[in-house]
Amino acid sequence: MTFLKISKAAVIGAGSWGSVLANVLVKNGLDIKIWTRESKQVTELNEQHTNHHYLPGLKYDERLVATDDLAAAVNGRQVILLVVPTVAIRSVSQKIGKILQTSNERPLIVHASKGLELGTHKRISEIIAEEIPEANRAGIVALSGPSHAEEVARQDITLITAASADVAAAKTVQKMFMNDFFRIYTNQDIIGVELGAAFKNIIALGAGALNGLGYGDDAKAALMTRGLAEISRLGVAMGAKPQTFIGLSGVGDLIVTCTSVHSRNWRAGNQLGQGVPLADVIKNMGMVIEGITTNKAAYELAQQRQIEMPITQAIYQVLYQGCDIKQAIANLMQREGRSE
Amino acid sequence: MTFLKISKAAVIGAGSWGSVLANVLVKNGLDIKIWTRESKQVTELNEQHTNHHYLPGLKYDERLVATDDLAAAVNGRQVILLVVPTVAIRSVSQKIGKILQTSNERPLIVHASKGLELGTHKRISEIIAEEIPEANRAGIVALSGPSHAEEVARQDITLITAASADVAAAKTVQKMFMNDFFRIYTNQDIIGVELGAAFKNIIALGAGALNGLGYGDDAKAALMTRGLAEISRLGVAMGAKPQTFIGLSGVGDLIVTCTSVHSRNWRAGNQLGQGVPLADVIKNMGMVIEGITTNKAAYELAQQRQIEMPITQAIYQVLYQGCDIKQAIANLMQREGRSE
Repeated sequence: MTFLKISKAAVIGAGSWGSVLANVLVKNGLDIKIWTRESKQVTELNEQHTNHHYLPGLKYDERLVATDDLAAAVNGRQVILLVVPTVAIRSVSQKIGKILQTSNERPLIVHASKGLELGTHKRISEIIAEEIPEANRAGIVALSGPSHAEEVARQDITLITAASADVAAAKTVQKMFMNDFFRIYTNQDIIGVELGAAFKNIIALGAGALNGLGYGDDAKAALMTRGLAEISRLGVAMGAKPQTFIGLSGVGDLIVTCTSVHSRNWRAGNQLGQGVPLADVIKNMGMVIEGITTNKAAYELAQQRQIEMPITQAIYQVLYQGCDIKQAIANLMQREGRSE
Repeated sequence: MTFLKISKAAVIGAGSWGSVLANVLVKNGLDIKIWTRESKQVTELNEQHTNHHYLPGLKYDERLVATDDLAAAVNGRQVILLVVPTVAIRSVSQKIGKILQTSNERPLIVHASKGLELGTHKRISEIIAEEIPEANRAGIVALSGPSHAEEVARQDITLITAASADVAAAKTVQKMFMNDFFRIYTNQDIIGVELGAAFKNIIALGAGALNGLGYGDDAKAALMTRGLAEISRLGVAMGAKPQTFIGLSGVGDLIVTCTSVHSRNWRAGNQLGQGVPLADVIKNMGMVIEGITTNKAAYELAQQRQIEMPITQAIYQVLYQGCDIKQAIANLMQREGRSE
């Protein structure tokens, strides 16, 4: 498959990351429609060119067009970029699939979501493949890596990965996004990229909890290292390539998520560590905390496959079994010394 | 080789790390003598139980005995732990070798230094093996991992690696140090542990420089990821196992060195990024910045072996070829997009 230069794309989802990716594409000269189901947000984006709930202070490019009409966003576009929470991926993909069947179009599908479906444990691209008929998609690409919407918004340099089994599709996405501050690497291991993206949020919850409990940088670095090892173990058992976990979408994203104040999973873990009850943490954040559901999916997968994941297990005990976080983390950090 | 429980050890070098490691061992119940050539420091440690130049505010265990007499420190000890700057390893090892030949003793040699010898490019354990006769050493172990002296001093949890081709020697060191807050993993790949320890300081200089130049967390995570890849490439070419670079002494130490305010290599890079001349940075720090000499060694090794190390090269150009740091880092971060 080879693609012509992309000139028209749709971005589905107008949270922090979706709206910033849309803004990057507009600045790169593309004709972009962004969809959100919130009509108030549509009006704000089209009239004030702001998105204050997600990125207060950012002025979006005036050429960015928002709509709450999914068909109007999707029709006539060469690329559809999905940036909705994991929990919404299946229903949104289903609707897009029907629209594309009616219009008989076949765009490239890209997503930048990070999680696994509860119950089925499916990756985002697997859900998309089930819901958008093959005749109506030209390839599926996952976009992932160490990236905070806030930093991309102010045009700080960011390097991320476009992953697809279809090299040409990944290269198309690379060319579409690439500019002076937004740098794209391609990767053929979409399984590893999607699993790294999902699982690192679990470790970020743990790193945040350590901070909330008063542990230092040594403990955090150790947790991140052991965390990388355990999410790689599960990922490789699920078909990922080990080297993907030491790439941008693996250790790169793990680092930024565990060490940056912008990370919502880290912040949620930090509040938990400080003793805030889970329900209040979720309410305080006001945005989806993917790590909480991903932890359940990863815990179940590890149980099924008998893979040792002590950090995932400790966090599961805190989130879903009512264990005391102080005790769970202390047990974790004082496990018996062994060989690496 | 099997060891009895260690009860007497010497620590050679009383900087931040050496003095804190000595203090941990005293608290673990060992009889410890610490050596420094500075007689003023000996008096301060023995009388005030402080080491104010290195760790202001820390009160050392009163059972820790300091001496400036190397033979008095070394004789009758089951373990000799070397914690001196890389540049002093050869001369100190030579002196210890002679002392041990005279006394006809055969202790276990441990080191916690991080660097490569300029010119020869040799690892610390290779230098020790050349200078202390085989008849006078019972094994060589490298101690390394994500650890700030400041955090170990206040008994924050720290996990590090004891590495030796000799498993029993590594386990002896593990048992000697292990307590509630200081956790030791063993590793047989001493080559990988020593190279990771040395090379990560180069990446820390780069991460600090990014910060000094105003780059954000995304850029730092990307640099650390690409940095890990390039130091692994060189390490593996030199005989290290790739998985060691994703362990505590690899990515773990890289994380803590690149993201913690305690890291002197990061702080040196940060000053360079802010435009402070190299000579002034070295003067300001008042302690050895291993990354500066290790960068030269790694650059030369990469040239010899034709290994691509763009970050190491960019930093070499800044440190040794008078390149403008702003331009060197901008070129580095904007290299052509490619596959991972």
